[in-house]
Amino acid sequence: MRVTALAGGVGGARFVRGLLHELREVRQDRDSEVVVIGNTGDDITLFGLRICPDLDTLLYTLGGGVDESQGWGRADESHTVQQELAALGAQPQWFGLGDRDFAAHIARSQWLGQGQTLSQVTERLAQRWGLPDQGVRLLPATDTPIETHVVIDDPAGGEQAVHFQQWWVQLLAAVRAHRFTVAGLGQAVPAPGVLDALRTSDVILLPPSNPVVSIGIILGIPGVRDALRGSRAPVVGVSPIIGGAPVRGHADACLAALDVEVSATGVAGLYADFLDGWLVDDADAAGAAGLRAEVRSLDLRMRDVHGAARIAGAALDLATDLSSRRTA
Amino acid sequence: MRVTALAGGVGGARFVRGLLHELREVRQDRDSEVVVIGNTGDDITLFGLRICPDLDTLLYTLGGGVDESQGWGRADESHTVQQELAALGAQPQWFGLGDRDFAAHIARSQWLGQGQTLSQVTERLAQRWGLPDQGVRLLPATDTPIETHVVIDDPAGGEQAVHFQQWWVQLLAAVRAHRFTVAGLGQAVPAPGVLDALRTSDVILLPPSNPVVSIGIILGIPGVRDALRGSRAPVVGVSPIIGGAPVRGHADACLAALDVEVSATGVAGLYADFLDGWLVDDADAAGAAGLRAEVRSLDLRMRDVHGAARIAGAALDLATDLSSRRTA
Repeated sequence: MRVTALAGGVGGARFVRGLLHELREVRQDRDSEVVVIGNTGDDITLFGLRICPDLDTLLYTLGGGVDESQGWGRADESHTVQQELAALGAQPQWFGLGDRDFAAHIARSQWLGQGQTLSQVTERLAQRWGLPDQGVRLLPATDTPIETHVVIDDPAGGEQAVHFQQWWVQLLAAVRAHRFTVAGLGQAVPAPGVLDALRTSDVILLPPSNPVVSIGIILGIPGVRDALRGSRAPVVGVSPIIGGAPVRGHADACLAALDVEVSATGVAGLYADFLDGWLVDDADAAGAAGLRAEVRSLDLRMRDVHGAARIAGAALDLATDLSSRRTA
Repeated sequence: MRVTALAGGVGGARFVRGLLHELREVRQDRDSEVVVIGNTGDDITLFGLRICPDLDTLLYTLGGGVDESQGWGRADESHTVQQELAALGAQPQWFGLGDRDFAAHIARSQWLGQGQTLSQVTERLAQRWGLPDQGVRLLPATDTPIETHVVIDDPAGGEQAVHFQQWWVQLLAAVRAHRFTVAGLGQAVPAPGVLDALRTSDVILLPPSNPVVSIGIILGIPGVRDALRGSRAPVVGVSPIIGGAPVRGHADACLAALDVEVSATGVAGLYADFLDGWLVDDADAAGAAGLRAEVRSLDLRMRDVHGAARIAGAALDLATDLSSRRTA
């Protein structure tokens, strides 16, 4: 079996870790291949180094190196480099980077500078984290550099666009986003293996990642949405909204910019043209009537890897049921 | 008074620190300006970051941040980034870089990447280390990227050129150097202020830096040697060789490549066309007869800042005597 998941950062990484636990430990399935297509829209160049927050969160989480309490960055991290950069007056200081994390950005930037693609660089980083041994392939959604920008009010009048990370990390998404634009998206090409994974997978999963700035960016890369629409595999998603609020992050502020209701049903609407199955929290079961996708409800809180595995298992079960019904 | 010194790494930095102590503390001279022209021939790009070992050693030493025991790098240094780079398989691993040190290379590379010159970058780094407050201007010898290469035997037959740092740090200068070549030297332009400092200084000092791969590289930048020859200021040097051996480093291996005798007199011969005064160790006093430059002997061991100040003071005294004799 081949399972492909589209993923953003923390929520996506924890879901995929649960998926692997469900497959390898609970179901004793050593053969299924898992392909993860990671969002690159929130990539940013800081201090001249290329930083891929979502890919790194996926690598650190799946590789066992993540800071569990914050969900991103490295465990047992120090911040000597950033402190010295502050002493040197290097900017910006609002994006926290640890020393171990810096090493990944330095290596990535070096390898990109040598002409390797982001796919090739990501494969090397995945080696360090033992992903191949787990039967996981992590693909950036695209090797084309893209950057999500957020259009907000300019205090001097009118509007201004800031990098997504500035809005998310420095402004804590507390400033109203009018809309999102993605520099380079129109010319972006899906990374090698992305369309193939979507076309040939047996199951396609949408983890509870941000539907606008994570999954939404991947969907915007020319060819990806069409591949999902035309895929033979059932597409099963997990709602990132529970009871009208995001499980973590600022998905509510992102949905508001799109005038989309902050609800499990509102998010499903963004995926309406290709979504076959939709997992919602028990709290949202009543509101999900009327969707074309088949809806199942369960406890969607991923308290630990076992909780995430339970949800991933439910998604796999729903996909299996949908597949067998298609075949029948 | 304006004093200009050409300098390499550890020896040059310790001498200049002594010079500042002599001027500011011993002679209570707050007004004299000190210009330091630093070697950039051993600069290297590692992990995609531009590293300027001699400039950094000067900054750290004059700014009070150096690791005193090794003479280079930062005090209280950690090596988290390098350890993680090793885990990632990033190369090379033979050049040790600490976390605080990495921050300087990251900032420098960022600023260079933004189009600033090495002079501008060095000025920003000098601010962090309080050099302007000490009345010191640190200038790279050139803003043109140059790189010293060492021609050695190729085990496969014939010769090969390796970067100076590879020969010095990885091979510990234990492999015989046939000759040195400096990529980019012919097209290099002295950095802003370099020729002016040499032309308008009252005293020009050559610290006990490596005469071949430190001072020698600076002298090879088109215009520098002519400026020294034509300078109105006396040029006073300090021998890096005591009793037939370098005080530190591998100057003997460098001199051997040039077929120059490893002696205070041998080094003076490299400066013969512009050297006016030459300080040698008491052990070498007898052998220094026959030089055009005026020779004085003293204890040249720089055991601490006071020892370095004593030597710098002797160099200033000799320069003053030479100047007054010219005027008379």
